[in-house]
Amino acid sequence: MIKLVLIRHGQSQWNVENRFTGWADVDLTESGLTEARKAGIILKNHGFIFDVAYTSVLKRAIRTLWIILHEMDLMWVPVSKTWKLNERHYGALQGLNKEETAAKFGKDQVNIWRRSMNVRPPELAADDTRNETSEPKYQEIKEGEFPLTESLLDTEQRVLTYWHEIIAPTLRTGKRAIISSHGNTIRALVHYLDHISPDGIASLNIPNGIPLIYELDDELKPIKRYYLGGEGDKDSS
Amino acid sequence: MIKLVLIRHGQSQWNVENRFTGWADVDLTESGLTEARKAGIILKNHGFIFDVAYTSVLKRAIRTLWIILHEMDLMWVPVSKTWKLNERHYGALQGLNKEETAAKFGKDQVNIWRRSMNVRPPELAADDTRNETSEPKYQEIKEGEFPLTESLLDTEQRVLTYWHEIIAPTLRTGKRAIISSHGNTIRALVHYLDHISPDGIASLNIPNGIPLIYELDDELKPIKRYYLGGEGDKDSS
Repeated sequence: MIKLVLIRHGQSQWNVENRFTGWADVDLTESGLTEARKAGIILKNHGFIFDVAYTSVLKRAIRTLWIILHEMDLMWVPVSKTWKLNERHYGALQGLNKEETAAKFGKDQVNIWRRSMNVRPPELAADDTRNETSEPKYQEIKEGEFPLTESLLDTEQRVLTYWHEIIAPTLRTGKRAIISSHGNTIRALVHYLDHISPDGIASLNIPNGIPLIYELDDELKPIKRYYLGGEGDKDSS
Repeated sequence: MIKLVLIRHGQSQWNVENRFTGWADVDLTESGLTEARKAGIILKNHGFIFDVAYTSVLKRAIRTLWIILHEMDLMWVPVSKTWKLNERHYGALQGLNKEETAAKFGKDQVNIWRRSMNVRPPELAADDTRNETSEPKYQEIKEGEFPLTESLLDTEQRVLTYWHEIIAPTLRTGKRAIISSHGNTIRALVHYLDHISPDGIASLNIPNGIPLIYELDDELKPIKRYYLGGEGDKDSS
């Protein structure tokens, strides 16, 4: 039986400010740091250990992972960082307050942007200062492939590409993994692993900083899924 | 011109206690944390940036690197951790106080263990609790290859194996690298890069937490070597 741990980063500054974050590289709040520490402690107390770790290139996910590895005395674990585990790119909505956006465009439109699988928010303009195409952390993205917005489906597709090419083959060798990532990328993995309907997945909330444990069989089919401690338990049904 | 940054971890608890550390996984002191932060700030202020980072599997080197990457806003940089960049394995001396060891075995003997290239300290016994052969962080070391002691030459050889196989080819592709490691491993690299005589290298002190900068030509031959700030400058001649 293979155990896989997924964790959404701890609370970030823009979670507090209720702003669309996407690829904006916002750090954790004090509460977020505490959530990450608690996650590390509960994983350690439950006897988890990892051979390998995956995260995005965004600091809220990396810091969450680093704190967990520190708490578990597993700082030596190899960590792969990839933009393919980044949060969904939120296009021109990045940085906007969610309530203000709803007031401006209407609640229905914002709900469509947030929850429909295929609809992309407006693109970020090429010359928008929020556009980080030239940031060195994205140097591995090929010319012309840098997203300026993404639908949930776009996000899911790149996450699953990485899952099939990198993570799944590693799990099949018996390595124990943790993935520290983001709300929409973890939702994408849950969608894929549990064959949840599009309607069901859109309303599934992934809590910050609560380890989500998958027990998988040899073919990586889920036997069991549960949250480890915290309020996340309410989502485990 | 290729710039390479070497850094010895900040002060560790056993640096303070004047104990042989080797592969013992001792953490940084408060001073060590401060040294790491200062190193990150001075590297950032001098405009350094990295595409890749290397470190050992020991937390004093990893933590030093993490703090530097945090200060430089480079948390996304890929990090390779390897036992081949671990401190020299100090055999049965690990954990012993250096003065007490000198009192017991004589200063001359301790000097020979510390500074001669070929002499190995006594081996750690297979059943010694300090022996970490079964630690998961060493799972990549093949059966029978786990060192129970090392001469300086043993250490140098494994460091240079990693240099030639992994680091040098990466530098030749133009990637900018930082290596966060240990006194004897950095000394091994300086020995190799600068063709320093065995006598000269034995007395070369590598200060904790001070970035050592190499400017290398296309064939990775040193053009210039200097410390960035701090008391390390006294060693740069």
